[in-house]
Amino acid sequence: MNSYQDRILYSSLRDKVISAEQAALFFKDNTIVGCSGFTKAGDSKAVLSALAQRALTDPLQITLITGASLGHNTDGNLAASNVLKRRMPFQVDPVLRKKVNNGEVLFIDQHLSETVEQLRSKLYDTLDIAVIECALIKEDGSIVPTTSVGNSATFATLANKIILEINLSIPVTVEGIHDIFDTGDFPRKIIPIMAADSRIGTASIPIDPAKVVGVVITHTQDSPAEIAPPDAQTLAIAGHLLDFFEHEVKVGRLKKSLLPLQAGIGKVANAVLGGFVEGDFHDLTMYSEVLQDSTFDLLDSGKMTFASGSSITVSDAYYKKIWAEFDRYKSKILLRPQDLSNAAGVIRRLGVIAINTALECDMYGNVNSTHVAGTNMMNGIGGSGDFARNAYLSIFVTPSVAKNNTISRIVPMVSHVDHTEHDVDIIVTENGLADLRGLAPRERAKLMISKCVHADYKDALADYYQRAVKRGGHTPHLLEEAFSWYTSLQQTGSMKPAEVFA
Amino acid sequence: MNSYQDRILYSSLRDKVISAEQAALFFKDNTIVGCSGFTKAGDSKAVLSALAQRALTDPLQITLITGASLGHNTDGNLAASNVLKRRMPFQVDPVLRKKVNNGEVLFIDQHLSETVEQLRSKLYDTLDIAVIECALIKEDGSIVPTTSVGNSATFATLANKIILEINLSIPVTVEGIHDIFDTGDFPRKIIPIMAADSRIGTASIPIDPAKVVGVVITHTQDSPAEIAPPDAQTLAIAGHLLDFFEHEVKVGRLKKSLLPLQAGIGKVANAVLGGFVEGDFHDLTMYSEVLQDSTFDLLDSGKMTFASGSSITVSDAYYKKIWAEFDRYKSKILLRPQDLSNAAGVIRRLGVIAINTALECDMYGNVNSTHVAGTNMMNGIGGSGDFARNAYLSIFVTPSVAKNNTISRIVPMVSHVDHTEHDVDIIVTENGLADLRGLAPRERAKLMISKCVHADYKDALADYYQRAVKRGGHTPHLLEEAFSWYTSLQQTGSMKPAEVFA
Repeated sequence: MNSYQDRILYSSLRDKVISAEQAALFFKDNTIVGCSGFTKAGDSKAVLSALAQRALTDPLQITLITGASLGHNTDGNLAASNVLKRRMPFQVDPVLRKKVNNGEVLFIDQHLSETVEQLRSKLYDTLDIAVIECALIKEDGSIVPTTSVGNSATFATLANKIILEINLSIPVTVEGIHDIFDTGDFPRKIIPIMAADSRIGTASIPIDPAKVVGVVITHTQDSPAEIAPPDAQTLAIAGHLLDFFEHEVKVGRLKKSLLPLQAGIGKVANAVLGGFVEGDFHDLTMYSEVLQDSTFDLLDSGKMTFASGSSITVSDAYYKKIWAEFDRYKSKILLRPQDLSNAAGVIRRLGVIAINTALECDMYGNVNSTHVAGTNMMNGIGGSGDFARNAYLSIFVTPSVAKNNTISRIVPMVSHVDHTEHDVDIIVTENGLADLRGLAPRERAKLMISKCVHADYKDALADYYQRAVKRGGHTPHLLEEAFSWYTSLQQTGSMKPAEVFA
Repeated sequence: MNSYQDRILYSSLRDKVISAEQAALFFKDNTIVGCSGFTKAGDSKAVLSALAQRALTDPLQITLITGASLGHNTDGNLAASNVLKRRMPFQVDPVLRKKVNNGEVLFIDQHLSETVEQLRSKLYDTLDIAVIECALIKEDGSIVPTTSVGNSATFATLANKIILEINLSIPVTVEGIHDIFDTGDFPRKIIPIMAADSRIGTASIPIDPAKVVGVVITHTQDSPAEIAPPDAQTLAIAGHLLDFFEHEVKVGRLKKSLLPLQAGIGKVANAVLGGFVEGDFHDLTMYSEVLQDSTFDLLDSGKMTFASGSSITVSDAYYKKIWAEFDRYKSKILLRPQDLSNAAGVIRRLGVIAINTALECDMYGNVNSTHVAGTNMMNGIGGSGDFARNAYLSIFVTPSVAKNNTISRIVPMVSHVDHTEHDVDIIVTENGLADLRGLAPRERAKLMISKCVHADYKDALADYYQRAVKRGGHTPHLLEEAFSWYTSLQQTGSMKPAEVFA
């Protein structure tokens, strides 16, 4: 099926095939747009790009809602063309980020599970247009998504108009890996997922074909994930975490199959999952957002039996391998809507082990995932809060220092809190692992100082803590000094003690 | 049934009746104790008190885990006798609070839904003793709790030894208002609650009678809730909130029956619920932690049809009324284990409207519920996070100022974060209501300055915001100045601008 006609089995939609440029004309100023795409996977390759182009000469602004980040510099192009008035719930683009931080784009940094909640509850005005990448339009008009599900099913239900992008680069054999389930109005339906491999819904997204205003044909692959290879630091973090899991098995709190794993995107999480390939654990499963290179390594190694998420986001080499050997993977993966992959109740029910990257942590276990020095947005909280809040184990990993040790990732008080002390179980740096569970704040601080902070900052952090304790309190702090490491960084280019106490 | 023998229907346990003093001898140094009690309701009236007494001459220390707070100064007496080494997950006692803040008692401030999670996952050492107040021991050995369920069902399952306190002041007709359901090991069972009145479990807590080492007889009532009558400020807050609900009905986002209500304890929440008695809403339900005076007013008024929680915590007058007219209330209330009343998945499924009190809020919508000036513990986060994180509407209420206006409850940056900007929808003070949903941080700040902050602090907050915006960022802040209101308070006795900018 390489001809696009063969991919439009609902025959009347064959007349709706248009160019991306034509599709871009459906957008009006101030419309609200929902678009497929989750961590670069299954995003609109043509229509949003044509919209960015159109806006260069025909200005307009929209609210753009996606699953998560888009690939192909689409967010950057839209931002550069001033198309984005509002953007939610996540982004990773440097051009867009700059506009978010200077206040030109209103960015709503949202838990990935919650966008659908807000859309359904009619918080926003009418969703005008949904743009959804798919591999196939079925006989009943329903569509088979590609490498992500994201919020597409809800967009399709709520939008007045739907534009479909049929991506010919995705084999139609992809049909079968999606699990679409609509939880409906309040009281929402029970989500009966009991394991990563629970299939509870349909393999395609139901849509009303009468709402389809255009079908655009593309053959562009997803933007590849760029994953740096593990280095000494990430391997040390992975090592500490694997030692911890072994210890938990030894004391009887976990089995060798652990519990379903969730891992944020990035090289540390990839290194941790990579460690399981060699390790002694087996029959692992994944209940996560993103299926990454390391997920497929684990499936290949036989150590992992099943992985569910909301997208497949892999490097170019893995992308090729997965499609070349798709039959081998097909029975071992499922892609779900992100309100299910990230559902609070399911995460708690399964007892997920959540491993996410922190931008910085403080000595009491609060985690900043989003804001550089408390003000500038990096990417957004993404799904980390959905998992951390309800996981059996909420683990955050970070190198202890950055930028030639001028920045400590372990600070007296984080400059922005995305995950509170109540929600964080374990913090790991290359120096060690702090198991904060069941500890009072003062115990946590001592452990963080002993296990996690870099040697260059250890004395300074201990000094801050000791002086704060003298003043008392459940969570001792010196508010007038709590952020002095940041002001030192701003003034001297380094958080280092010499500068701090100069 | 006023003789205690009539309340021990599992006959062999009649031989286990002992005095509280005898029961107190079962405790050993370093043991872990789980005890009934949730916001003063259904707590141990005799055994813990006798333990505090014993420890005056025979020192020992324990880890004490409860549902939530205890009544009758029990926490204070235990703290004064140095019995408490560790305490979780919540407390409200001034004597204990002082010991927590000076570091003498290790307090673990925990989401109320999570204690059971950690106990089941064997995070702590063996649970040695459970002390559970009950109204009746049934023929099968199971027990009927009194005015709360809390964590008692899990304590009964996990503890090696059980001490029962039969409280003769509670009528045995209380049997039937409890709904006990154990979600088991991972994957935990689905919690099939679809409405406040869903009954999913049993009316009594199953226990192994062989573990019962003693039965103590008491006839002491619960400590009464002390609820200040509404004043101009709380009535203004309630008024703004009721206007908001009416608006939401008008625009079609809510029906006149709203969605299940949760309200934290305290006079503001009580005033809001009180407002519903007069208002135009009907067929209201409550899915909450605590059933308060106002809950029973709403049931009496016919405006509320059903209320479920984990405890009945009411004033003395309501306590008397409820038992005098219990038949009238019995079919309209349910008490559940707190891992169910506060279950993330159920709260999201039902679309709960959560109304909780903030200690302070910042202009971006972060909320501090626990720490005075970032360091000193008040009570604990309680269940506010369980609800706020997954509610359909997460509402926080607070007067805009305290202590003769020397303290602003709306600040540039909160000194401790319990509820992040991602989780807070609406903030209400007596000045107005800020609906922060779907807004970017800069929009939120403008709204908070315009609607919520007190006139005495409005210019100062606007000035901080405007200067921060000049420096840029998604969430503009001046880190070197973010906590200056607290340092001013410390130095001058007031956060007021004159002092701030002196």
